[in-house]
Order: sequence, then C-alpha cells, then structure tokens
Amino acid sequence: MHETDPGRTISGTSAAALLERLDRTLAHEIPISAALGIRPLRYDGLELTLAAPLAPNLNHKQTAFGGSLYCAAVLAGWGLLHLQWLRSAGTDEALPQIVIQEANIDYRRAVDGDFEAVCRWPVGLDPQRIARMLERRGRARAELEVRIGPEADPAIAFAGRYVLLSGNHARPMAAG
Amino acid sequence: MHETDPGRTISGTSAAALLERLDRTLAHEIPISAALGIRPLRYDGLELTLAAPLAPNLNHKQTAFGGSLYCAAVLAGWGLLHLQWLRSAGTDEALPQIVIQEANIDYRRAVDGDFEAVCRWPVGLDPQRIARMLERRGRARAELEVRIGPEADPAIAFAGRYVLLSGNHARPMAAG
Repeated sequence: MHETDPGRTISGTSAAALLERLDRTLAHEIPISAALGIRPLRYDGLELTLAAPLAPNLNHKQTAFGGSLYCAAVLAGWGLLHLQWLRSAGTDEALPQIVIQEANIDYRRAVDGDFEAVCRWPVGLDPQRIARMLERRGRARAELEVRIGPEADPAIAFAGRYVLLSGNHARPMAAG
Repeated sequence: MHETDPGRTISGTSAAALLERLDRTLAHEIPISAALGIRPLRYDGLELTLAAPLAPNLNHKQTAFGGSLYCAAVLAGWGLLHLQWLRSAGTDEALPQIVIQEANIDYRRAVDGDFEAVCRWPVGLDPQRIARMLERRGRARAELEVRIGPEADPAIAFAGRYVLLSGNHARPMAAG
C-alpha cells in the first residue's frame, strides 16, 4: 500500500491477474463464499465488483435473501482492501489481516436477479496514512461503502468499518 | 398475533412443534441457510435461539466469517417474528411477509466456536399494535435486537428493522 496510488487505474493484464488471485484467496479464506456463488468480476485499481447468482441466494419471494446481499457487500469491501495491499506488496506474505468491525446495511429495493456488489476506494481515504498507522500502531481503520444496483439509485447501500492489523499485531480481535 | 401475549411462555410440546415448523420454513424459504448450517434451537414464546456450526462458516483465521454471523442474526429476528405469527394464526396461510429493511451489526469479539444467535421479543413492542397497523395500512414495523455470545457481554450485537406486509399488500419491496 506504500507505493500504490489507488486513484491510478491499472493495466488489463495486471487487473486480471489480481482478480484471479482474489478469487483463489476468497475460495481459500472464506469457503462459504463458494456456496453463495460470490466471485470477483472486475477491478480497475480503484473499484472492485463482486458478482453473485440469484439462484443459490433466493428467498421464498424469489428475490435475494438479505443475508446473502450482506455477504456480497462485506466481501466487496474486504476484497478491495486486500487487492490494494496485493498491488503494493506483490505477495500475500506480510499482508495485514482485514476484519470487519461494524456495518450498516440499508435495503431499499428487492433484488430479483443476479447481482453485483461494487466498492470504490473512497476519495478521502489515504493509503499512505493507513500504512503509517499500521507501522506505528499495528492497526488502522478504513470506512468503505458498497452498493448493489445502479450508482444513482442503489437497491442496497452498505457502509462498513474495517480494521487492518499488521502481521506482528494480528490477532483474532474481531470477526473477519 | 392478535391473541398471543409474547410475554407468556408456552409449553415444551408447543415450543417443540413450533421449532420444527420454523426449521421446515427456514429450509424451504431461505435455502442457503442449510449451507450455513443455521437451525432453530430453542423457543419459549419470548426468545428464539438459532444455532450454527463453526465449520462451514470458518474464515482463514479459524473464526466465524462476519457474513455468516450476520446471516444467523438476521434470521433470528425474522424467525422470532414468524413464530409469533404462527402462534396466533396456527397456520402459514395469510401470514404477513417479513422482510429486513435496515440493519446494523457490531463485531466486538471474534467467534471461535459453534455459535447461537438469540433474539428476545422487546418489552416495548406491542403485537396488538402491529396487528392493527397491518389491518389498517397493510404494513407494520418491528425493531429487534439479536446477540451472539453472553447476554452481559455479547461478541456480536445486531439491531434490525423489519417490515411486515399483510397478504393483501405484500409485494417484494425489500430484500427479505
């Protein structure tokens, strides 16, 4: 994260390789994401999109279960932070643990098809500051927003506060 | 809900029958709950407990994935409202749709074993008032809290606003 400007987009090849890495990481680190069918779809250095099929996440009203929508949203934020670190470090070693600390989700409309959770790196979030906090204190916070549905009028609006814990200080203090 | 006092506990037989009903309903209406291993465990007319095993919900830190904890919590609230209606109506017919409208979840500690999500009927929530609102306007709201972990010091604190929609007015306006 030290040397990467999250506002600078990356090449298609690089983005594809990072997406593939995230796909493997997700399958390995959060196995239940496979049952939910949640997969990385797009990443341009600034914005990550995860996709999920409706079928395994259906409720009896033939729309998406609210818990599944939450899972896609919380993983989109987690994935964006993870990718940001992969880009700067180039390896999974020494990556900080990323855990969710608090989240709010607003269900504005039903989701009645396959869905995508989109998380964009916030304008005010400085990766350098996060890196400094991690070095000094072993932990840092990041607040991210995720939407499902059109940007102008999302069906689902999610806001999550994540904590990053450096390798030295990492301990299971929160539910990731 | 018209004739049931949520503060009155019910007999073991009746509770067991209702739990079995809820188990079938959950499996039928929210199929992904089976993958998460979420099952009704206890109900006394006032408080519902859902249980989930850690194994399918593990993250790479060997604790429970935050999305799985959310799913258990949101279903505990949904299940308690559902059971409250089943008790008064005695049938699934004409039950209102119950959907989650907004939720907040606070991850205070990691959950490193099988877990239980507990939802207790709030003291200030009047079933008669809900029934009246449903009759008059076709919809009503209920705010519920769910905890995972000890009551005095829960690992996870969830608060959700649910909307109940009567059969006549029910439409997929929110993600259930």
